[in-house]
Amino acid sequence: MAVEIERKFLVNKVKWQEVIKPEGSYLRQGYLLTDPEKTIRVRVKKETGYLTIKGKNEGATRAEYEYPIPVKDAEELLDKFASACITKVRYEIPVDGKVWEVDEFSGENAGLILAEIELNAEEESFTLPDWVSEEVTHDKRYYNSQLSLLPYKDWQGK
Amino acid sequence: MAVEIERKFLVNKVKWQEVIKPEGSYLRQGYLLTDPEKTIRVRVKKETGYLTIKGKNEGATRAEYEYPIPVKDAEELLDKFASACITKVRYEIPVDGKVWEVDEFSGENAGLILAEIELNAEEESFTLPDWVSEEVTHDKRYYNSQLSLLPYKDWQGK
Repeated sequence: MAVEIERKFLVNKVKWQEVIKPEGSYLRQGYLLTDPEKTIRVRVKKETGYLTIKGKNEGATRAEYEYPIPVKDAEELLDKFASACITKVRYEIPVDGKVWEVDEFSGENAGLILAEIELNAEEESFTLPDWVSEEVTHDKRYYNSQLSLLPYKDWQGK
Repeated sequence: MAVEIERKFLVNKVKWQEVIKPEGSYLRQGYLLTDPEKTIRVRVKKETGYLTIKGKNEGATRAEYEYPIPVKDAEELLDKFASACITKVRYEIPVDGKVWEVDEFSGENAGLILAEIELNAEEESFTLPDWVSEEVTHDKRYYNSQLSLLPYKDWQGK
């Protein structure tokens, strides 16, 4: 088992525009299962598919099992079995020895930009770049599994 | 995508006892998801784990996606996320160029023996050995996913 310890933040869009970015990767993903105890995700990233099982969040930590699968299988699984797909472009931005993953969502979640940082321990310290704003690690609405069910465009009062 | 075309039969226990069998394989499996449209199964067979997604049965046919995973992951996934596990010993019996998979269930499904044959087409002909009895391909109670939810020991009027 891998353990994923991750903190998630909103992004200041004005400052984010000024960041010099490497080329992003287009991601398409959907869920075969989303329940409070576990999610099963299928993702297509470039020429590879991924099947990923994640456990329940406990703090910023959760169990994660990820397996590469043929991209053709991943496309078929998404088309046949997944709930609405999420699409986004992911940028990997190195900051002081850590890599931030910044997702610019498209489709039903257009307008949303989220930044995630993976940590080795919940209490690990790290640099917050100035284009990062409010933390939303514990806000379930921002889970990708939830965004596939209730996309950003349908949020009230955002 | 692989397509699985499979017919399933009950076994005549008296005649089955007389069959000369190769060594069987102990299987432990459980389900991360069982719904009418798809099942997600985790199986441990000898030193390998398998993660398998199957679509809905249409006749004797269904879509199947199977991936080997580390046996340690499979054990953890079963312990953490699966519904009640099924245990069985599987025997592979060659008959006239086809291989029958005969599962002797244990645990909550003890007493049940099922024989399956995989075909290349729904209408393919094959030899029925004399230790095979009633066909149960379309009887959902005998789906392994269902046996994990309502085991054989709890069946009424069997």
